[in-house]
Amino acid sequence: MKISPFRRLVSLSDALRIVMENTLAVGRMEDVALASLAGRVLARDVVSPMDVPPFDRAAMDGYAVRSEDVAGAGELNPVALMAVGELFAGDEHAVRVGKGEVCRVATGAPLPEGADSVIMAEYADEEGALVRVRRAEPMWGNVSRRGSDMRAGAAVLSSGTVLDPAKVGILASLGMPSATVLARPRVAVVSSGNEIAEPGAPLGPAQVYNSNSYTLSSLVDRSGGIACIVPKIEDTADAVRRAIEKASEEGYDALAISGGSSVGERDLLAGALSAAGGMLFHGVQIKPGKPFLFGKVGRLAVFGIPGYPAACLTVGYLFLGPAVRKMAGLPADRRTVRTRLARRVASRLGRAQILTVKLTDKNALPVFKESGAITSLAAADGYIIIPEHTELIEAGEEVEVVLF
Amino acid sequence: MKISPFRRLVSLSDALRIVMENTLAVGRMEDVALASLAGRVLARDVVSPMDVPPFDRAAMDGYAVRSEDVAGAGELNPVALMAVGELFAGDEHAVRVGKGEVCRVATGAPLPEGADSVIMAEYADEEGALVRVRRAEPMWGNVSRRGSDMRAGAAVLSSGTVLDPAKVGILASLGMPSATVLARPRVAVVSSGNEIAEPGAPLGPAQVYNSNSYTLSSLVDRSGGIACIVPKIEDTADAVRRAIEKASEEGYDALAISGGSSVGERDLLAGALSAAGGMLFHGVQIKPGKPFLFGKVGRLAVFGIPGYPAACLTVGYLFLGPAVRKMAGLPADRRTVRTRLARRVASRLGRAQILTVKLTDKNALPVFKESGAITSLAAADGYIIIPEHTELIEAGEEVEVVLF
Repeated sequence: MKISPFRRLVSLSDALRIVMENTLAVGRMEDVALASLAGRVLARDVVSPMDVPPFDRAAMDGYAVRSEDVAGAGELNPVALMAVGELFAGDEHAVRVGKGEVCRVATGAPLPEGADSVIMAEYADEEGALVRVRRAEPMWGNVSRRGSDMRAGAAVLSSGTVLDPAKVGILASLGMPSATVLARPRVAVVSSGNEIAEPGAPLGPAQVYNSNSYTLSSLVDRSGGIACIVPKIEDTADAVRRAIEKASEEGYDALAISGGSSVGERDLLAGALSAAGGMLFHGVQIKPGKPFLFGKVGRLAVFGIPGYPAACLTVGYLFLGPAVRKMAGLPADRRTVRTRLARRVASRLGRAQILTVKLTDKNALPVFKESGAITSLAAADGYIIIPEHTELIEAGEEVEVVLF
Repeated sequence: MKISPFRRLVSLSDALRIVMENTLAVGRMEDVALASLAGRVLARDVVSPMDVPPFDRAAMDGYAVRSEDVAGAGELNPVALMAVGELFAGDEHAVRVGKGEVCRVATGAPLPEGADSVIMAEYADEEGALVRVRRAEPMWGNVSRRGSDMRAGAAVLSSGTVLDPAKVGILASLGMPSATVLARPRVAVVSSGNEIAEPGAPLGPAQVYNSNSYTLSSLVDRSGGIACIVPKIEDTADAVRRAIEKASEEGYDALAISGGSSVGERDLLAGALSAAGGMLFHGVQIKPGKPFLFGKVGRLAVFGIPGYPAACLTVGYLFLGPAVRKMAGLPADRRTVRTRLARRVASRLGRAQILTVKLTDKNALPVFKESGAITSLAAADGYIIIPEHTELIEAGEEVEVVLF
């Protein structure tokens, strides 16, 4: 077994820069129906094909009038007008309001021809066919004007917009049954290692269950990608090379391989990636996650992720999640809270420590056990980054927690 | 047309309390495969069926030794030991380390019998079959002990836990191919109103497109529910009554009807709900959203949501989303930021104003147009609540923005 140290580790900030520079938004588009559009990213500008509302309409239940007819109306001098009709929302028959006339209207009804304002119901009384109006209303009062919400020809949503419920509502209001959005990035997720058994299958004497494929795929899905879990591959140079080729051929945007990126003799991914001319870095000044490597083969981004569960998911949160969001066209999602560290923590100079913490009412409690322990992350709400030039954070010092 | 005012409006806080008290977590459970578990809520406590790791294993690439053999080792007095084997992760063959012996081990390999610690590769040199160790290592140094991550029989995740990627990893590490989680609440979403046309269909002269079904269904899905968009119903008492019955019979957890909850003659939902004995309130002291009504028919929660798009979605964000999260077993998700209001805003005493705002670098800019305008919400990042007893907020005053 030849064991060689990592040659040249890159800093956390350089690693982040290289990963983000080399992951670009997926260019593919797809048409998606309204009911499934929330959270998706518009691929084209949307221009309104119509006025919304498409006609002048009553904004209140009440009486459509000519505003000049009620100009002098008040509590002490009501104006009596003649009711000539009634319109509900959706009613298509024509009503004309002439001088001295009113038309009863419900909210959403088209404003009758001739009328230019609506008196709210509580400011009028009916007496047979007479309606006594006790309040003036200026022209277009209580009327939603045609096009006041959106005008035909106006740019209403731009390419790159993330569709939240209200923006889905915009598309619906414009009568669009679907929209063209960015396709989700497809990420092949594979674990390598002879020690890996699949959950549900029996465990050999030197085996552990594959958790990395499931933590990484959960993270990819949550970051706006589509994860495809590929069956585990053997620890051979050939198997790793074929996994890269296959992911490229099948049009994946990224490949996340966990395991096989440390520096023992079975460090095969680095070799395969270097041979393909795509290695961008191997080894980062962080703990956990030092063996992380990253490269590009054609347009396939290759994430070589350490096999230890906590190191794997830490690298996932630091690099893979943000890269998938970028490929999906989604903005960065880095939610943080400032709080105090519950106890003193030492760190080694020269590498950034990613310390998982649990948030309590009053502070952040370190919960990291070791890179191999999945519980190091499962008990945590987020992490703090202790920079490479910091040796110690005292209990009670303020820290910024990046939330999972 | 008989137009009567709302009889008794409830306050925003009472309305919230009544809605939340009357929406309970869905009791149904379902088995979901690992790859789809992220974001779901555990329905049962999980007890570890095994030790994780399942055996003592090497935590570093290096040499498994008996710690007593290297107790005096140092840079100036290396200890020479005899290499007797080599173990990689997954290797099942037995190696025994006797006194004066070492076994090469890769990270993740089972610790050979007889050994009790691992010397990191960089603190030893090989010379033929001899290994010179230049550093002592205490017992169990660089060893991940069996059960150190999780112990057989230990409670590892409790019922009600939301599964994030790391927690999915816990289940995978325990060999579980699936887990029992709470079923998602099913919400029937329907728009009523003769003026409503479906996106994609031609628009009649007094019609507008149905946006509410799509904004509400997007919100339901995002809140952990499953929305089912039901074809629009007619504005008749019979159609509304049948919609409630059908949603009950088909086992929906909630029914969200938009439109038809104002106080014109076509105010049919209130009648149907009162007739069924399930009305809990009708009318809330808020703007927009005053006509909101809520009730319960058997175990079906009925949300009568105003038809105007901005009012509809405001009620959705205030009431429907939080209720669906509660039914889904998810914790409240109320993300807020504190900032300053960009301009003076007046409000009317006696009702809370829900004012949509756009966040800029330095403040929150009101963007509300009118209840009928979907753009009132689409341009907004969130809203502030101006309480019922506040008449005015000055420009520059600090406000809390609830993010969409």
